[in-house]
Amino acid sequence: MTRTVIESKTKTAVIGFDQPFCVIGERINPTGRKKLAAEMVEGNFETVIADVLAQAAAGATVLDVNAGVAAVDPNQSEPPLLVETIKIVQQTTDLPICIDSSVTGAIEAALEVVEGRPLINSTTGEEEKLEAILPLVAKHKLPVVAISNDETGISEDPDVRFAVAKKIVEHAADYGVPAHDIVVDPLVMPIGAMPTAGDQVFALVRRLRDELKVNTTCGASNISFGLPNRHAVNAAFLPMAIGAGMTSAIMNPCREIEMNAVRAANLLTNNDEAGSAWIAANRDPNAAGGGAGGGRRGGRRRREA
Amino acid sequence: MTRTVIESKTKTAVIGFDQPFCVIGERINPTGRKKLAAEMVEGNFETVIADVLAQAAAGATVLDVNAGVAAVDPNQSEPPLLVETIKIVQQTTDLPICIDSSVTGAIEAALEVVEGRPLINSTTGEEEKLEAILPLVAKHKLPVVAISNDETGISEDPDVRFAVAKKIVEHAADYGVPAHDIVVDPLVMPIGAMPTAGDQVFALVRRLRDELKVNTTCGASNISFGLPNRHAVNAAFLPMAIGAGMTSAIMNPCREIEMNAVRAANLLTNNDEAGSAWIAANRDPNAAGGGAGGGRRGGRRRREA
Repeated sequence: MTRTVIESKTKTAVIGFDQPFCVIGERINPTGRKKLAAEMVEGNFETVIADVLAQAAAGATVLDVNAGVAAVDPNQSEPPLLVETIKIVQQTTDLPICIDSSVTGAIEAALEVVEGRPLINSTTGEEEKLEAILPLVAKHKLPVVAISNDETGISEDPDVRFAVAKKIVEHAADYGVPAHDIVVDPLVMPIGAMPTAGDQVFALVRRLRDELKVNTTCGASNISFGLPNRHAVNAAFLPMAIGAGMTSAIMNPCREIEMNAVRAANLLTNNDEAGSAWIAANRDPNAAGGGAGGGRRGGRRRREA
Repeated sequence: MTRTVIESKTKTAVIGFDQPFCVIGERINPTGRKKLAAEMVEGNFETVIADVLAQAAAGATVLDVNAGVAAVDPNQSEPPLLVETIKIVQQTTDLPICIDSSVTGAIEAALEVVEGRPLINSTTGEEEKLEAILPLVAKHKLPVVAISNDETGISEDPDVRFAVAKKIVEHAADYGVPAHDIVVDPLVMPIGAMPTAGDQVFALVRRLRDELKVNTTCGASNISFGLPNRHAVNAAFLPMAIGAGMTSAIMNPCREIEMNAVRAANLLTNNDEAGSAWIAANRDPNAAGGGAGGGRRGGRRRREA
């Protein structure tokens, strides 16, 4: 049974086929958040701290930490900012961390200060990237997110994306990184632009699980890009992805409809013992609808005429 | 490609592997609705009419019509009441009808007045039931719901439920009823009582589709029986069932969270061309959240450092 173990100094999160879905909180990320980026550059971490606390309270399992503020020279500026951000996050929460950067030097710097066993986000299938990231995760014996694109870009053909994932897993093995420490992101396309995006990712996740025996993750909200009422699309996508075998997502845990969809999917895949997590999160008696149809069909059927 | 065709005088509904999920509205059913039962017995169909209009407005594809008012002798009282109810429903909507009764005489009487090609709900795998219902649907060339229990009751073993479904499909073939006119209900157990209920039904639906090539339905809300916030459980269950291949459900279309889950699942399984149904149902600009994370991960990945 595939298990990816991620740890803070005191807390362990497990991504696995037999585990509740791992929610990797996406909020500590200035990409596309101009105000947050400006604050972080100024050394103001108030929003970071607020987002850490909010995500922890909402039930995140792991926190993604990204300090990519779109600077002139990220190779110079991102390492110290990521280090500072990780220190702040660790002072604020005991949740395990996912170190998220496209700058290898920033990841290396972050590894100097991070406590426990972080998840590294990410490598792709590009040779240069693999040669930068795999030795690093091998040396520190860390798990890593593997995004299924390479030098040729993101293929629209799911078979090509599977092949890229397979290549990464094989390369990782050469470096001594086991498959259970690779969390593959099969890449979720916007359904509004590609009508087969859902079917593609569900089929890919099943193959990745059955054939490569790896855990999977995704940027879940990409699926609804450009559509109205995005959160309702995400809230259907997540249970379907979980039903197909996906074991984690990088997502916003502060959206109740999406988190409840994840909790319900945990319940429905028998990963919520005695329904205790569901009941704890939904015990408000006003929310407890007896509702129409409760066991009614079953009841009718048993009535004999 | 399996297709079950249901028709009113003027409208056609298709249950199929390549179709949007078929929502069979469950509201015209006095079982468990004491007030409605009392009204119907008195010949007051105001609630029936209101429920027809509400379900049609909410987007039901087919309307289930049940007149089981728990009378002393349903064999005597149910046929005329079902006939009267069907007449009222047909005067109120052009949606196709699912004739729902455990009284064979009531189904026979309903067939005298129903227009088009109704779905018959239901037979089980019980010999006596099969011998009553199959000749009737064969004679009228109608589709039928087949519930996967028999004389021994509802098995907790999904292999037994599959075997019962297979037996019904084989018996039906003997009567000249093709597999594409059998809509199997694999029986949904309450997840609160049976933690494997979700996994069971998802696996069963896949087998029914792959091996027997039949459409499927279920009383969807049974899954959440006894739990708090039932509608959120149903709203995760429906997309997961659709992802596993389920093609219809008997459900309450007036619950927005559940209907939107179905619409999103149609979109995510490429059964909503150009997303037009999703956009039509969700075009309220207040609901159109740009939200956090939109395409962000994709964006970040493409940024090179």
